[in-house]
Amino acid sequence: MMKFNDVYKNIVLNESYKNWKKHFLDFFFQENKAHLIALHEGGIVDSNLAKELKRGIKKIETAYDFPNSLPEETEDIFFVFERKLEEIIGKDKAGFLHAGRSRNDLDTTVFRMFMREKLLAFLVEVQKILEELKRKIAKNLETAFILYTHGQPAQVSTFGHYLSSFAFELLEDAEKILDSIKIVNRCPAGAAAITTSGFNINRKLLSELLGFDEPVPNSYQAISTSHWITYPATAVRIILEDIGRFVADLFHKASIEVGIVAFPNNLVQISSIMPQKRNPVILEHIRIYSELASEELMGLSTLFRNVPYQDVNEVADTSVVAFEQAIEHSRRAIRLFNEVLKSVEVNVDRCKEVATATGSTTTELADELVRTEKISFRIAHKVVSRFVESGFSYEVLKNSFASEVGREISISPEEVDNILSEEHFIEVRKVYGGPALEGMTPIMELFSQKQKRINDSISQILKQFRRYKANLVKKFESI
Amino acid sequence: MMKFNDVYKNIVLNESYKNWKKHFLDFFFQENKAHLIALHEGGIVDSNLAKELKRGIKKIETAYDFPNSLPEETEDIFFVFERKLEEIIGKDKAGFLHAGRSRNDLDTTVFRMFMREKLLAFLVEVQKILEELKRKIAKNLETAFILYTHGQPAQVSTFGHYLSSFAFELLEDAEKILDSIKIVNRCPAGAAAITTSGFNINRKLLSELLGFDEPVPNSYQAISTSHWITYPATAVRIILEDIGRFVADLFHKASIEVGIVAFPNNLVQISSIMPQKRNPVILEHIRIYSELASEELMGLSTLFRNVPYQDVNEVADTSVVAFEQAIEHSRRAIRLFNEVLKSVEVNVDRCKEVATATGSTTTELADELVRTEKISFRIAHKVVSRFVESGFSYEVLKNSFASEVGREISISPEEVDNILSEEHFIEVRKVYGGPALEGMTPIMELFSQKQKRINDSISQILKQFRRYKANLVKKFESI
Amino acid sequence: MMKFNDVYKNIVLNESYKNWKKHFLDFFFQENKAHLIALHEGGIVDSNLAKELKRGIKKIETAYDFPNSLPEETEDIFFVFERKLEEIIGKDKAGFLHAGRSRNDLDTTVFRMFMREKLLAFLVEVQKILEELKRKIAKNLETAFILYTHGQPAQVSTFGHYLSSFAFELLEDAEKILDSIKIVNRCPAGAAAITTSGFNINRKLLSELLGFDEPVPNSYQAISTSHWITYPATAVRIILEDIGRFVADLFHKASIEVGIVAFPNNLVQISSIMPQKRNPVILEHIRIYSELASEELMGLSTLFRNVPYQDVNEVADTSVVAFEQAIEHSRRAIRLFNEVLKSVEVNVDRCKEVATATGSTTTELADELVRTEKISFRIAHKVVSRFVESGFSYEVLKNSFASEVGREISISPEEVDNILSEEHFIEVRKVYGGPALEGMTPIMELFSQKQKRINDSISQILKQFRRYKANLVKKFESI
Amino acid sequence: MMKFNDVYKNIVLNESYKNWKKHFLDFFFQENKAHLIALHEGGIVDSNLAKELKRGIKKIETAYDFPNSLPEETEDIFFVFERKLEEIIGKDKAGFLHAGRSRNDLDTTVFRMFMREKLLAFLVEVQKILEELKRKIAKNLETAFILYTHGQPAQVSTFGHYLSSFAFELLEDAEKILDSIKIVNRCPAGAAAITTSGFNINRKLLSELLGFDEPVPNSYQAISTSHWITYPATAVRIILEDIGRFVADLFHKASIEVGIVAFPNNLVQISSIMPQKRNPVILEHIRIYSELASEELMGLSTLFRNVPYQDVNEVADTSVVAFEQAIEHSRRAIRLFNEVLKSVEVNVDRCKEVATATGSTTTELADELVRTEKISFRIAHKVVSRFVESGFSYEVLKNSFASEVGREISISPEEVDNILSEEHFIEVRKVYGGPALEGMTPIMELFSQKQKRINDSISQILKQFRRYKANLVKKFESI
Repeated sequence: MMKFNDVYKNIVLNESYKNWKKHFLDFFFQENKAHLIALHEGGIVDSNLAKELKRGIKKIETAYDFPNSLPEETEDIFFVFERKLEEIIGKDKAGFLHAGRSRNDLDTTVFRMFMREKLLAFLVEVQKILEELKRKIAKNLETAFILYTHGQPAQVSTFGHYLSSFAFELLEDAEKILDSIKIVNRCPAGAAAITTSGFNINRKLLSELLGFDEPVPNSYQAISTSHWITYPATAVRIILEDIGRFVADLFHKASIEVGIVAFPNNLVQISSIMPQKRNPVILEHIRIYSELASEELMGLSTLFRNVPYQDVNEVADTSVVAFEQAIEHSRRAIRLFNEVLKSVEVNVDRCKEVATATGSTTTELADELVRTEKISFRIAHKVVSRFVESGFSYEVLKNSFASEVGREISISPEEVDNILSEEHFIEVRKVYGGPALEGMTPIMELFSQKQKRINDSISQILKQFRRYKANLVKKFESI
Repeated sequence: MMKFNDVYKNIVLNESYKNWKKHFLDFFFQENKAHLIALHEGGIVDSNLAKELKRGIKKIETAYDFPNSLPEETEDIFFVFERKLEEIIGKDKAGFLHAGRSRNDLDTTVFRMFMREKLLAFLVEVQKILEELKRKIAKNLETAFILYTHGQPAQVSTFGHYLSSFAFELLEDAEKILDSIKIVNRCPAGAAAITTSGFNINRKLLSELLGFDEPVPNSYQAISTSHWITYPATAVRIILEDIGRFVADLFHKASIEVGIVAFPNNLVQISSIMPQKRNPVILEHIRIYSELASEELMGLSTLFRNVPYQDVNEVADTSVVAFEQAIEHSRRAIRLFNEVLKSVEVNVDRCKEVATATGSTTTELADELVRTEKISFRIAHKVVSRFVESGFSYEVLKNSFASEVGREISISPEEVDNILSEEHFIEVRKVYGGPALEGMTPIMELFSQKQKRINDSISQILKQFRRYKANLVKKFESI
Repeated sequence: MMKFNDVYKNIVLNESYKNWKKHFLDFFFQENKAHLIALHEGGIVDSNLAKELKRGIKKIETAYDFPNSLPEETEDIFFVFERKLEEIIGKDKAGFLHAGRSRNDLDTTVFRMFMREKLLAFLVEVQKILEELKRKIAKNLETAFILYTHGQPAQVSTFGHYLSSFAFELLEDAEKILDSIKIVNRCPAGAAAITTSGFNINRKLLSELLGFDEPVPNSYQAISTSHWITYPATAVRIILEDIGRFVADLFHKASIEVGIVAFPNNLVQISSIMPQKRNPVILEHIRIYSELASEELMGLSTLFRNVPYQDVNEVADTSVVAFEQAIEHSRRAIRLFNEVLKSVEVNVDRCKEVATATGSTTTELADELVRTEKISFRIAHKVVSRFVESGFSYEVLKNSFASEVGREISISPEEVDNILSEEHFIEVRKVYGGPALEGMTPIMELFSQKQKRINDSISQILKQFRRYKANLVKKFESI
Repeated sequence: MMKFNDVYKNIVLNESYKNWKKHFLDFFFQENKAHLIALHEGGIVDSNLAKELKRGIKKIETAYDFPNSLPEETEDIFFVFERKLEEIIGKDKAGFLHAGRSRNDLDTTVFRMFMREKLLAFLVEVQKILEELKRKIAKNLETAFILYTHGQPAQVSTFGHYLSSFAFELLEDAEKILDSIKIVNRCPAGAAAITTSGFNINRKLLSELLGFDEPVPNSYQAISTSHWITYPATAVRIILEDIGRFVADLFHKASIEVGIVAFPNNLVQISSIMPQKRNPVILEHIRIYSELASEELMGLSTLFRNVPYQDVNEVADTSVVAFEQAIEHSRRAIRLFNEVLKSVEVNVDRCKEVATATGSTTTELADELVRTEKISFRIAHKVVSRFVESGFSYEVLKNSFASEVGREISISPEEVDNILSEEHFIEVRKVYGGPALEGMTPIMELFSQKQKRINDSISQILKQFRRYKANLVKKFESI
């Protein structure tokens, strides 16, 4: 080992060492065990040697305390480990463990193992959100609500319909996060430095032992690819941006002046002197964490801009630790958001008030005229428009209809009232994906199917993780 | 229609009108036809009325020249169209066409139809790149090459192995672009303003008539979602960033001093006074277009930051036109890149020279010592290290081995030469995904399978597009 | 000239040629004239030759129509020009014009001349906004208004105070745009390829002739620096992001439910069927153009990521044209915003209503108790809090004060009413920068001073531009 | 105090509390002291009360250990402090300290105090870089070097000329960081919640006591503005992107194949088996930290996208702590870069080799023909071009000249050799900003002037910081 420049050592090598000690040791030991098994099965080390190497690895894993900072004359944690191994089983034997391997494939394998767990844990949080949304939708399939466009009350719908719109967005985001986990969950091990080696190393075995789905096909790609960072970064980012849009929506709906949704006291920072203030500041904090994490994740995908494919330091611990922080910030946003979903309630009276004041159902009267009076949409619009301007006078409706259409209107005042009711507005919207039960039922079935597929995948991956860990221990112990 | 503020009219309404006239008219007519069919099949307009509406639509499509700028007192192209329709078939009839529809669902349906074609056309360019890469890989499975890490010659491999590393990256990117087309290719039509309507509109019929895979489930989501912009933006962006990395790599390898790849004269801006200058400036232009497009696409995904879910102007023509420009810039990058792939050749002599000068195969001698002499990797390294320092003296190797291992080395000078040859280095790397034919064959089969899946999907979508267009014309004509 | 690859020629060379023809020709001729003057004054070309070169340049400028696409066997517009010049005055003479110059310094000089004009034109739009803001502030120094925090009504202030807060933000942004123009306005001419030349070219003369402030100091920097793109991109971006924040603010305040500001009909897209809808959609369009331009500008600053300092294609026409588009989008945002500023009015009654309903002045009663009753802030808060909870009952105030403080309150019911009035709330806030006239006067003086400095700088630059153009013509003609 | 939702409390309130405890306590105490002095001088608290408040503050500062996590029923650190103060001097007295103040102005004042110190410390690192560059330039004013364009050797220059090009870039960046510190260094204190208060608080006094340059003019702006985050984020980002470009340049120049610069062993991770590998990995780590920090900073400027001006949580501790991390990453990049500058040396022999092989001086021969033979630039080029193609044969030069120009060339073979020498190439480039001493001297004087201005400003700010701290203690103690 050579002597490094002090600044370089402090800023680069020691930071990296600390990252490894804090985040990656468990996976490092797993990789060592799997590699030993592969060396043994490939006939590269015989049983006696394998047993010795196993003894050394176990000893370090169970009894060695890695120092808090990088020891003098050492480049990284790998060499600290190797030196320790040499101490325990001797230089001549210890040196065999690294045959057919390089720090390149070792490191990137470990990083992917770390990443997949962080991503899966995040996806589990998203899964909870989907569950919460589904529950809330089911409870609110008939709760009248107002949907806005351009910051204005537009039409009446149900709270379930509103939430399900967003639920489908998150569902898609969850699918993409899952896809990105599959990209991460390929095994670089056995690629050695970049070209594999002349040793009989079974990459499929390594992949299996370490719980991956399959090996990364090409050995250079195994070391150089940025996809296991850029794809998940992108996938997590989109869900955060989506949540940001929804939170901006709720923020408006929860404001004092709008007030169509409400939150419990324990999410509202009430001012002792201004008790009317009831806006849930939690929404701002979801926004901030979403924004921050979203930017951190975008940064991780821009990190590779014009970085030659041959340079591989961007896919190392500094980036992975930055990713971990972004995931932690994302998790905070998601958890806060879950509290919001759990507690948000519709203020039914205020909804009715706003709906009435803004005529959010009048479009239905025009539609009804088209259907029952067989007049064109534009003429119906004109007639209803006068009615609205008059302050909803049936007399005006009647006269306007007569003068535009040239005959008596057939709809009675009572029928008009019914047509303009929120219940009716919702009830007739039976089109697929509309707010009536007939519209909602098929799409919620679709939702459940898709959600099930995600849930099943998550369970399967969790099982896969548990299984490989158990199996790895077993195989290692039985050497 | 009211009178708008002049600045607003010029900057917003008229720009939007011009965008529509330039990019969206074809799809607009398709949507009108499909909606008419749905109105007819839903019993909302009877046969006579449907025939009249058909006559009007056809007349406008074939005989009307939309003015170059937005006519006075008109808000958008839709009203220009409707007014024209009123002129042709009368106000009372024309007004029926818009029943059960809104500009909201009309617009966003049209935008998606435009987007999916642009994206598919782009994917076809990527498909060509994959084809070119595959051809080039097949031709260069045994062309020795040097792989670099950290900007330095690292190990010998083949040019085919090098290219296939990158080919797998692009393959994955192509899959994700395909996925994003599926997200785009869902039909919002029938969602009307946001809640569908009370009219008997069959959204699945509309979806089929317009060549979509399925309706967007929720009607509010149909209008508000940004996924048909953000997901494709993200997918196209990643491939550009990947190309950027590869181009940076080639730029280095093609430089005068490195020179392990070469380009034909027609891609090199030769200086009359400095004929040695042979760097392909085309690489810089790929970089610039990739960077530019990549940034434009990133912008399109950040566009929705903190935009309330209720606001829908971000998913309108301004963004779609910006997307189109980004795709055009991307296409330029891709096309230039295709020329690069077609013409790049390995400078075999220079490769050998660099390989020898930098000892890119010496690691294999150490590995061989581990295998045949059964000494540990670290000891082998030490022995070979002295050999290298000595300028490859067999004497030194022999002595060093003897002193470290305590016995005679069994490998002869001739064997050493063979071990250090490029051919041997490649030949022994038979591990899955390594450069030897045994390593490359299974991964290129995997590549072909995956590529076939993409090709099949592209063909299927192209067929779907052709089919819906023919079918739509047929159904419309037979009204 | 060699023959280029067709794809390269179409995508790269021809696009660049078209960019030059469309955007840069005027400046190109200016640069040629200035360079000729410098050649002449440096004794590099004698009077006769100079006259001939002048004749050729004039002939091309006045009588030559550059073809619409790049002629065969030509690399760029420079060679089209040079070939034409050769035709007119002969090869032996024409060839002198390029002595001591390279396309490198010629191009980048032209780009900077284009950029500075675009930037200045944009700054002039900002100047108008500042003027409009100042006018509006002066008119509304006593118009009561409500300031919000966390989406909630917080405290009473004046509309002038509100606007001036934002005006100071824009003022600072304007200063930074001005600074960035100074960075652009340095002259690269005379740097030749990168190291200047052995010709006696006076760079300070060139700088002056072309209206620059000074030469770029180092000749390599003159060609390589990205600052004339990144600094203005950054400066323009920040003002757009600031406008975005303010527009989001107005959007909320203009919504139906809040309604404390109002817009004239010609900025509001009224629905015929929902006449209550009055939200100014223009605000959404400002947001969209701001977002879009902001992203384009950010892209231009990220464009140089990891681009070696030696590579200079990123600072060429593709980027400059992209910049121009970003500026055009920015200009749209700014112009729409100016209409908003001109027309926005306070809904005074609604303000009073909201202020009363949300107790936006009660904090002042607590403060008054601290001042006149000499009780601590916390105790005053507690007393006033009970008063608010009681629905503003003086009796409760009195009793609560007595029980907390142990003596009679000295403030009468009439005084309480006065203290709680909006007028009083504003009036007492005389602190520097507060809403009372005493608070506003000094900061508006500061505003005027700073605005004057910006206005003076703009005038000075405009004069400098006019002057150099006149002077350049004069000097060129007098050769 | 109310009871908060547990998730909210853990993720939001407690995180914020920990941020405050870790980063902001010192400044918090300073603000409290300054506010007390202002209350006293404004006559709001009398001497006795002021003395008691002083006693309380001192007690807490010197003797109280803030708990490690937020105590139950408390919202933030401010209330922990206030409660403690109440314990020490009684509720009736403690409550006075917050008169004329709000957590809004208190917090943002503290954040700015923190930010300005972090920024200044970073600027001091940049100052060192400028110093190092200047030293290196002075030492290398005559060290021949090669400048590249488009990845190719272009022309000969000096290493001093090369470095000074980049030095001017950094100088400008340093100026902008300094400007951004001035934006940060304005005092929000006295703005209270948003509108100041009715208390006689002297904002200019507060500003001076806390070492600010002046108060933020408008009181709402004082709370809402994002400029103290966005401007510094932008300024620091640009210098990192510039360093990134230069590092990419050095990376190329230091590669084995190019090798015109060299680094000492302690910055090069030598491979024991491939001793030829000498690329300084430190350059990659500078790139990574620059990229990472650059992205983090960009994120901080995009954080405010569409955040209503009224929302102020984005300018709070979460963002400030994120900023601090970005600055720390920036500092690492800068420090590593300083090591690079200190140790990089020109490989003079390799430079000469490359210069000769690539004819980097031949352009000078063409120029010389223009000057001495009075032939046009294009003809000279043609003649020299043949000379180069012939492999520098004087015979060819002579004949080519004769046939093109129609007379004998006047330059002798010896003169040709001299003209083509590196020394001559540099020597004749005396133009302002060129590599000859005559070109470099005036620009390095300009450099020194500008650098002095930066150094003076830094000294002045450092003095201002020391002074206000001393003064604040003095004034506080003398209450």
